[in-house]
Amino acid sequence: MKALTSYLEQNRERFLDELFEYLRIPSVSSESEHKPDMERCAEWLKSALLKAGADKAEIFPTAGNPIVYGEKIVSPDAPTVLVYGHYDVMPVDPVELWNTEPFEPVVRDGKIWGRGADDDKGQGFMHVKAFEALSATGNLGCNVKFMFEGEEEIGSGSLTAWCAEHKEMLAADIILVSDTSLMGMDTPSITCGLRGLAFVEIEATGPNRDLHSGLYGGAVVNPVNALCKMIASLTDDATGRITLPGFYDDVHEFSAAEREEINAAPFDEASFAAAIGVETPRGEKGYTTLERKGIRPTLDVCGIWGGYTGEGAKTIIPSTAHAKVSMRLVAGQDFKKVTEQFITHIEKIAPEYGVTVKCTPLHGGYPYVAPTDSAAYRAAARAMEETFGKRPVPFYSGGSIPMISTFERVLGTKSILMGFGLDTDAIHSPNENYPLENFYQGIETIPLFYRYFSETASNE
Amino acid sequence: MKALTSYLEQNRERFLDELFEYLRIPSVSSESEHKPDMERCAEWLKSALLKAGADKAEIFPTAGNPIVYGEKIVSPDAPTVLVYGHYDVMPVDPVELWNTEPFEPVVRDGKIWGRGADDDKGQGFMHVKAFEALSATGNLGCNVKFMFEGEEEIGSGSLTAWCAEHKEMLAADIILVSDTSLMGMDTPSITCGLRGLAFVEIEATGPNRDLHSGLYGGAVVNPVNALCKMIASLTDDATGRITLPGFYDDVHEFSAAEREEINAAPFDEASFAAAIGVETPRGEKGYTTLERKGIRPTLDVCGIWGGYTGEGAKTIIPSTAHAKVSMRLVAGQDFKKVTEQFITHIEKIAPEYGVTVKCTPLHGGYPYVAPTDSAAYRAAARAMEETFGKRPVPFYSGGSIPMISTFERVLGTKSILMGFGLDTDAIHSPNENYPLENFYQGIETIPLFYRYFSETASNE
Repeated sequence: MKALTSYLEQNRERFLDELFEYLRIPSVSSESEHKPDMERCAEWLKSALLKAGADKAEIFPTAGNPIVYGEKIVSPDAPTVLVYGHYDVMPVDPVELWNTEPFEPVVRDGKIWGRGADDDKGQGFMHVKAFEALSATGNLGCNVKFMFEGEEEIGSGSLTAWCAEHKEMLAADIILVSDTSLMGMDTPSITCGLRGLAFVEIEATGPNRDLHSGLYGGAVVNPVNALCKMIASLTDDATGRITLPGFYDDVHEFSAAEREEINAAPFDEASFAAAIGVETPRGEKGYTTLERKGIRPTLDVCGIWGGYTGEGAKTIIPSTAHAKVSMRLVAGQDFKKVTEQFITHIEKIAPEYGVTVKCTPLHGGYPYVAPTDSAAYRAAARAMEETFGKRPVPFYSGGSIPMISTFERVLGTKSILMGFGLDTDAIHSPNENYPLENFYQGIETIPLFYRYFSETASNE
Repeated sequence: MKALTSYLEQNRERFLDELFEYLRIPSVSSESEHKPDMERCAEWLKSALLKAGADKAEIFPTAGNPIVYGEKIVSPDAPTVLVYGHYDVMPVDPVELWNTEPFEPVVRDGKIWGRGADDDKGQGFMHVKAFEALSATGNLGCNVKFMFEGEEEIGSGSLTAWCAEHKEMLAADIILVSDTSLMGMDTPSITCGLRGLAFVEIEATGPNRDLHSGLYGGAVVNPVNALCKMIASLTDDATGRITLPGFYDDVHEFSAAEREEINAAPFDEASFAAAIGVETPRGEKGYTTLERKGIRPTLDVCGIWGGYTGEGAKTIIPSTAHAKVSMRLVAGQDFKKVTEQFITHIEKIAPEYGVTVKCTPLHGGYPYVAPTDSAAYRAAARAMEETFGKRPVPFYSGGSIPMISTFERVLGTKSILMGFGLDTDAIHSPNENYPLENFYQGIETIPLFYRYFSETASNE
């Protein structure tokens, strides 16, 4: 592996230059004006896979954004690793809070700043470069397949059907994903749990037009007030629990031993709070912060709007009010069932509050729990232990990568979530960043995973 | 008065053309990009007053938008009428709901369509044309003074100080205002009550930046959820009452006889509901719709926003959430006291909900109640009876013209609210309109008011 180490050393600058090219493409999947950028980004990625040593690479058009596939088959007897990532990124607003141009990446203070620097262009690209180094130096002991989608941030709408259609092509022993975070550079971790997601938009309608709040006020239901009441009614102040009927029915309750293991992970509550500028974390009574954000479900309004939101005062009773509500789901919960429970409940209570409602599911995904006693987990743990100098801990993340559970259901393949991000990377926020150290350490760790996985997998 | 009648008849078309010129100026006071339009509109109005026969007209600059003053003094012994109106208009958004261009007035189906057609360019301009007709035909029996401000829709911030400075110049026996509505063309009415207003913007802040709703959700207060809870807590579902401590302390309770008079006015609840597309009007228990929108106070969110409000889904916990809250006040309530009660209460409950808040008062105004046993009321009632063929009824409007009570406090002068609008005029909404019939009937009624007022006032 000495040739590999020196290859990585010699190509550091070029790897970064190439990542910057990738980051400059504003591939925001939720904004339709970026449609041409999605195509351009897919083309760029296909070409990057070929340059990195793929035998073939192909762009698969979908009803949404294209999927990029590439592969290098070294031997029918070698184990096969399927790398999954996404080339789409989140919107950049509020753009005025960025200190740099979101799509003009720069390195400052040892970090790469720009939208997608971590999530998931930076992390996904580490795999392309690790693969290039293994190929170029003759160290590739696994067959490698890549699939990069362009709709992760909007619910991976096209990927499930595409996977089902290309099941044979995608056959693999493990799916390898870097789209999660480490607990810290001093606390390497492997993500063993992901929350699912049910995301619904509510439109509440009162009068048929905006009304003068003086001439009508007091005699007509205000849909903003009503929407606030409905949203307020969905959670209980005293317990911090969600009051949606049936919501907790299928929630997997972790054992005392499991909870102990979760809470044994080093976690500094004060630093967590300080980093996001809150006095004390808050949530469901009876659970710790690590549990609340890892193994307990949530209900958060991600966006709300209604009436006059411009400068100054406009005294109206708005005709409509809207909210985008995200529910993070945990082991046991089915997003389709929760989405239906949510919509049924909102439609049921709306007349009590004097409004009509239209609920639109925006996306959903299943939660995922990964086993820690598999060949892939052991290979990942060993690889990380070697580069971080410390054994990684299993971590239950609060985030969602709905496709991970879908892969298991559709392809029958488990995933290993070996992410190199940090909580401070501000993914989905202004000033997203990714430390250079994490980028390069990822590129060094991935080849070790291939090595140990090819050893352990063939022994099993 | 025959000359007057024929003057009005002969100049109908020109009056409308001139109004259209006035309506074409987009004098939106709440949007700073329209600042030059405010100046242009004031100039246009000054020139209109001079052309109509004013001895002098002048533009008074203020810290905000200019005030236009004009006068014609016929005799030191004649009673003096001070006409008040405003040349500023509301914003036009949501502009896509307009059927015509907001600032390109047209006549369709017997109505003038455009922003300001009624509120208050159309109504204010009737006074200029009635005055012109009286002057031109030698029928002016009163001294007339005009003051038109450009900040009515944003709280009349400059007018109070200006009135105090020009108290002598503004000395009058009555202030005449057309900025209200008739109960209907078949039910002429004179507005005897106006609600006051306390308008406050709340900014609720949770974490110091937008957070990933998966990685943090469940462990951190979401300021949108918290703001919804706070707003929901301000009203009581069972009674429809406002729960703000002290809010009802000073509310004037009308007597059973007064309430009977209010409810005796012809009012078709079903048509009221149908016109605004709601099944049933709703409000405070124990009061009728007419009472709820006339003599009872309100709490309405006029605008709310927070988090991601664009296309698709963005799974964040927003850092901040905002609401613009309007409280309509009734006889007895002091907007300064209510504003303070509101801010104190929100600041007190915010920590319970886990957010910090910043409350900004946006504007305020006192309620007003007018006497029905005055010379001005009798003159207005007689004038309207003559043109409408029916005695007008006293009406308690839910709207606010905060300056009316300020005039009484600063100038010591009562106002008579002889408005000619209709509820269907959609003021403050898309597709504002003003029937031609109302415009011309107003111009015919105003000279009769001058005539009867000069008779009765000099006899008192």
